[in-house]
Amino acid sequence: MSTSQNQQIQITKAATTKINDVDFDNLTFGSVFTDHLFECDYINGEWQTPVIKPYAPFLLDPSARVFHYGQAIFEGMKAYKDDANAVWLFRPDENFKRFNNSASRMAMPSVPENVFMNGLNELLKLEEAWVKKGNGSSLYIRPFMIATGTGVMANPSDNYKFMILLSPAKAYYAGEVKVLIAEHFSRAANGGIGAAKAAGNYAAQFYPTNLANKEGFQQVIWTDDTTHTKLEEAGTMNVFFRIKDTLFTAPTSERILDGITRKSLIELAASEGINVEVRPVLVAELVAAAKEGTLKEIFGAGTAAVISPISGFSYQDVYYELPKSEDTYASHLKEKLTNIQNKLTEDTFGWTVKV
Amino acid sequence: MSTSQNQQIQITKAATTKINDVDFDNLTFGSVFTDHLFECDYINGEWQTPVIKPYAPFLLDPSARVFHYGQAIFEGMKAYKDDANAVWLFRPDENFKRFNNSASRMAMPSVPENVFMNGLNELLKLEEAWVKKGNGSSLYIRPFMIATGTGVMANPSDNYKFMILLSPAKAYYAGEVKVLIAEHFSRAANGGIGAAKAAGNYAAQFYPTNLANKEGFQQVIWTDDTTHTKLEEAGTMNVFFRIKDTLFTAPTSERILDGITRKSLIELAASEGINVEVRPVLVAELVAAAKEGTLKEIFGAGTAAVISPISGFSYQDVYYELPKSEDTYASHLKEKLTNIQNKLTEDTFGWTVKV
Ligand SMILES: Cc1ncc(COP(=O)(O)O)c(C=O)c1O
Ligand SMILES: Cc1ncc(COP(=O)(O)O)c(C=O)c1O
Repeated sequence: MSTSQNQQIQITKAATTKINDVDFDNLTFGSVFTDHLFECDYINGEWQTPVIKPYAPFLLDPSARVFHYGQAIFEGMKAYKDDANAVWLFRPDENFKRFNNSASRMAMPSVPENVFMNGLNELLKLEEAWVKKGNGSSLYIRPFMIATGTGVMANPSDNYKFMILLSPAKAYYAGEVKVLIAEHFSRAANGGIGAAKAAGNYAAQFYPTNLANKEGFQQVIWTDDTTHTKLEEAGTMNVFFRIKDTLFTAPTSERILDGITRKSLIELAASEGINVEVRPVLVAELVAAAKEGTLKEIFGAGTAAVISPISGFSYQDVYYELPKSEDTYASHLKEKLTNIQNKLTEDTFGWTVKV
Repeated sequence: MSTSQNQQIQITKAATTKINDVDFDNLTFGSVFTDHLFECDYINGEWQTPVIKPYAPFLLDPSARVFHYGQAIFEGMKAYKDDANAVWLFRPDENFKRFNNSASRMAMPSVPENVFMNGLNELLKLEEAWVKKGNGSSLYIRPFMIATGTGVMANPSDNYKFMILLSPAKAYYAGEVKVLIAEHFSRAANGGIGAAKAAGNYAAQFYPTNLANKEGFQQVIWTDDTTHTKLEEAGTMNVFFRIKDTLFTAPTSERILDGITRKSLIELAASEGINVEVRPVLVAELVAAAKEGTLKEIFGAGTAAVISPISGFSYQDVYYELPKSEDTYASHLKEKLTNIQNKLTEDTFGWTVKV
């Protein structure tokens, strides 16, 4: 990848590091950031000189478009350190592609590949010490873009800011996860923005998720907004269902995010000889299988938790508890995938990329 | 309304005013702001001392929740000056109620009535000179709230900032407005956030609206996302259809914003002896009426433009031109309503409130 003159990154180093103040054994996901961030501004049709600089608050005009009309997108990915102290990314090309798909749907400019990839690589090199070794440890990467143009007119901004933040993360154990199947609320419309990682999709889920929390459910599984009969995805995870020995997951669509963990698990499961069916999964099937005892597992799949087993679901005020087992597809696939991500096993898929 | 100790507003005045640099005859909607803004922060469950201070950029953390998860809402209202130089608001109680309904749907705190209303009144008193007289002139008011809490975890913020900005506006003539009826894209889901003035609803419309613009249409009329057979609303306007001598408009719902102009026009039209039917309006009806020649008018209704006549619509690649006429419900109702707003006629509805 060539770095042209105006894409050379201007680096300003922080005077001190916060790394010694961080308790890496007790990290709350997404709450601690490294010493530097990457930033590139888009002004009147041109990407400006990218910079790496100390992590710090920045100034925005009160009329900045992001505040009023929600032009904002993000990505979530992770870096891992192997035994030889090399830093690795997992399918970063997929995050890059998805980022620009989101940008297009939100009428935002594409971020050039060299801005995204060189920025990420240079930032990771500078913050190498923040990537800890060992299964479960990772550095969570948050690329995002916001509309910074001023003026409260409801049309696309001229100016944008692209940034990458880094946040150290430990293995993410969500505890027991009971889910509520959505019967009224929805996260995405047909012809809407559900397939984009647009900021507004997430705030839209907070209120119904709060209601579910109050009833004792940690997450909502969203259904199609027209009939509420098809199982779609959870807040920040795609979902898999194991009925007998087949894994089912919904096809991606305009309403469903094309998750990278999901697509990796589909390939991985197939390579392990597990039968995977990608097709609409009906709430009625799930309830019938739960009643018959053929529903063996439900799990969420996403970058933050990798795989998050679900212990039961509620639908129409009936709670269906799932069987408890040590020997699950969830635990088997999670081990396989995290071993690949952490370079503890050979990556026969070519998913891991060295920084 | 009582002002308790901690709601006393701290006022810091700007050293100079920009008002003399502003060409009030050539204003682009939403682009110029007055010298001061109102601000009140919500920190860990408590509204802080509200302030009025010079309009200026402010600092936010790169991980502020508004950037990543789109917790952001707004309102739009106007102030008018009468012949005796008194400043008036139009149904501000409706904006205040709707603001807090939006807040609730987006899992944000309610703004107390005295914070919202005293803040607005005090700011308007300070910026009185920015409210120009004469039919068509107004001061556009933009209350908004954003999530300022830090950390990239997808759940509601602890901290928020509520602000009010003021922007002088002239009568808004959109020129000829041709609209495209949405056949694929949508702005709102059943069980979604369409009825909230949530920032993310607007960015979601930019891409499909850009596509419509490229085909020569200024606006999109959204349809229900399930069947695309019901006419719902435009980007920032509700829509009315006149077939023969009856005005039709869709009922508000979870998908449609409860517009204050819309509800005022329904009352006003009824008081003028115009037959108004609030019921789902089908695309098929519209096309049939256009073919028969009974479709006489379509117009949008919203705070910015008050009433915006539409000259024709496209559906399934057929363009239906509307008859041109001087004597329309649109022009008649617009005159009546703007006369009330500008205090040029008696307000028998009790809609106008003195600052
Ligand atoms: C709505 C939604 N679904 C699914 C996922 C999982 O995607 P990925 O596996 O790429 O992290 C995410 C992202 O984390 C998401 O935000
Ligand atoms: C989506 C939408 N519909 C309709 C309207 C009209 O509402 P109001 O008449 O209260 O301005 C607005 C606001 O301007 C809006 O944003």
